[in-house]
Amino acid sequence: MTGAKTIPTDDDHAESRARELLLEERRSIDNIDAALVHLLAERFAHTQRVGVLKAEYGLPPADPSRERKQVERLRALADEAGLDPTFAEAFLRFIVTEVIRHHERIRDATSTAAPAEKPER
Amino acid sequence: MTGAKTIPTDDDHAESRARELLLEERRSIDNIDAALVHLLAERFAHTQRVGVLKAEYGLPPADPSRERKQVERLRALADEAGLDPTFAEAFLRFIVTEVIRHHERIRDATSTAAPAEKPER
Repeated sequence: MTGAKTIPTDDDHAESRARELLLEERRSIDNIDAALVHLLAERFAHTQRVGVLKAEYGLPPADPSRERKQVERLRALADEAGLDPTFAEAFLRFIVTEVIRHHERIRDATSTAAPAEKPER
Repeated sequence: MTGAKTIPTDDDHAESRARELLLEERRSIDNIDAALVHLLAERFAHTQRVGVLKAEYGLPPADPSRERKQVERLRALADEAGLDPTFAEAFLRFIVTEVIRHHERIRDATSTAAPAEKPER
């Protein structure tokens, strides 16, 4: 609406409008974060089931070809969505690290009879 | 289908059923990952705007009191959703680290591009 000011601190109205906009953005961020937390909870529910299946049926723990495909797919989706693909990959690895911890717990609980193998994803 | 098998490879049917279930779980995980990537892209679009606002009005890139509130809220949401609150907190910090990098870039770009004046939006 207005032009740029030479000394922004003189313009109390502009600053209070900026703070208002900041609050609006934060409300959206908080909503998105709630959605992210719920999606992550759901994702871990699925990987938990994967861990149980693998432990019960002695399926191969790691699946490098699946992991490569996941990384490639996520990088492509990120690129399309305007998200840094490198960040998307780091994000996937961050989650997978947690998944491995969960699977180790499942494996340890399941393998009181059978010997444990490499961590599963 | 029910309990763990002593020798899983003996039961071909059970193993093929397990592989089928595994594929189903992976399809769900892939869908959730696509949703996560799009939500993250949207989240960064908002924090990008926050970064521009902060750079324009000389607000600091990090905001410890806001971050404390975000952590508390996310931990509570995670707990309700069945997600490990410690993981939720680590997840938020992982994202915030990236956001701060973005904000620093915006701040640096803003201060070198227009040293005397506030850039127009």
